[in-house]
Amino acid sequence: MSEAARTLQRLLGGAPVGLVGLGLIGGSIGLDLKALGVPTRAWVRREAMARRARERGLVDQVCCEPGVLKSCGLVLLCLPMDQLVSPSPALLEALPPQAVISDVGSVKGAIAAAWRLLDHRFVPGHPLAGSTAAGVEAGQAGMFAGRPWVLTPYGNSDVAAPTLVEALALALGAEPLRCEAAAHDRAVALISHLPVLVSVALLHTASGEQDPVIAALAHRLASSGFADTSRVGGGNPVLGVQMATHNRKAVLQGLAAYRSSLEQLEAAVREADWPGLQRELACSAAARPHFL
Amino acid sequence: MSEAARTLQRLLGGAPVGLVGLGLIGGSIGLDLKALGVPTRAWVRREAMARRARERGLVDQVCCEPGVLKSCGLVLLCLPMDQLVSPSPALLEALPPQAVISDVGSVKGAIAAAWRLLDHRFVPGHPLAGSTAAGVEAGQAGMFAGRPWVLTPYGNSDVAAPTLVEALALALGAEPLRCEAAAHDRAVALISHLPVLVSVALLHTASGEQDPVIAALAHRLASSGFADTSRVGGGNPVLGVQMATHNRKAVLQGLAAYRSSLEQLEAAVREADWPGLQRELACSAAARPHFL
Repeated sequence: MSEAARTLQRLLGGAPVGLVGLGLIGGSIGLDLKALGVPTRAWVRREAMARRARERGLVDQVCCEPGVLKSCGLVLLCLPMDQLVSPSPALLEALPPQAVISDVGSVKGAIAAAWRLLDHRFVPGHPLAGSTAAGVEAGQAGMFAGRPWVLTPYGNSDVAAPTLVEALALALGAEPLRCEAAAHDRAVALISHLPVLVSVALLHTASGEQDPVIAALAHRLASSGFADTSRVGGGNPVLGVQMATHNRKAVLQGLAAYRSSLEQLEAAVREADWPGLQRELACSAAARPHFL
Repeated sequence: MSEAARTLQRLLGGAPVGLVGLGLIGGSIGLDLKALGVPTRAWVRREAMARRARERGLVDQVCCEPGVLKSCGLVLLCLPMDQLVSPSPALLEALPPQAVISDVGSVKGAIAAAWRLLDHRFVPGHPLAGSTAAGVEAGQAGMFAGRPWVLTPYGNSDVAAPTLVEALALALGAEPLRCEAAAHDRAVALISHLPVLVSVALLHTASGEQDPVIAALAHRLASSGFADTSRVGGGNPVLGVQMATHNRKAVLQGLAAYRSSLEQLEAAVREADWPGLQRELACSAAARPHFL
């Protein structure tokens, strides 16, 4: 057992980690904790999912009754955004009073606002790892290694709560960091939500070509550049709408800034200002390595 | 020797293929032709490049004198766009009178317009293959396999000329197709040049964030989605400017259509029209596979 896993075990005092939901994120956390020897419990909605989770060995115990969580010292809500922003009474009742609660939702302001009223043991969290896979088959070992895991604690009454979630992140090989929920949401609007809309608009433009000869050529000639630039625009539409719904203000700010950047490029092309365009392109090329 | 290579040899009547330039495209063509046993000659500008090309075995003969091309039956101009749009007198003089001439430039209208006046044996061409590498070290074997190779012949006096270039493309495993230069340029504006500007504007927006806390978070949290969407925007600024310079009209058309797609998405987010946004996202997700 690693030093980080021993620290987590010590802070938990032997209590298990509970997971609500065993999709991509919940399943991946379960697999890693099991490999570390940290006891795990999971509450899922459907019996078929519980059965498959048992077959895959995602956690030590999984069932469709919330009682499975009762001895947990830390419970992670690995649920879709909608269920995190408007937690059901059943979910709130299921959370054991001694446990620290955290989540993995990709927008933090809306979740923090909902939970601040509800529970002082709640620490909003966001592990930045994933794939396009979803469901009980999606969880994979080692998904968080080297990835950021953001926490946006809000003056919790229990100051030890964020430390426990950080210990979990460290045990999974992630790199925990703390920031304000609003700062997180503006940053992910720029690097995650804006790219989706930028990419959707590109697909929309290319597929909206009215001339059938040019449309057919565009399909035939598209290569890796188009595939990469359009990848996130081809993702799950429901997830795309959720991020826009719950991060609307920051997404609109990002879109406004983007529109003005694009207009500047368009002006350079229209006015044949090639030195100006080259400066913009050189500036972008120089900026990119800072994001990798 | 493959059937396609035998056809090329027969059409060439044993004459070598000449390459002007041995960068990424020229070097890759040379390597493949050598492997097929088709004789090759190359004219390059600098002695250091000729020496390195000999060391790498890119072609059978390479030198800095244009006389090396004199026995060629087909000469491919593997030069930057600027040199193709405004060919130097030295280049025009170097082309042997019996040879069919083609090029590999990524915009065809401007090149066709220049060469139409100059040479009736000229067939504008564009192999859609490549990498970000450049120079004499960049050429690689098999780069054209399965990739489109567009020809945009304009009522050539020599009707056999496009057939010879097609035979070369087929011998390299590429898939030749013919279309109008204007149609090619509008299609590549949509699937190649527009993505560059879309991606540059994204980098510009994310790196232009004024709040230092959010800027630092954006750098830290960016992951594969941002990396993919911004990849082509981080490319060679000189190439980006060349495509905009030589395909300005089609690029501006693409930008106008893109701006309107983006405004539609922005309106949906601003008006919280989530069903409308979901329709747009679903539509883009359904369109993407046609481009892959």
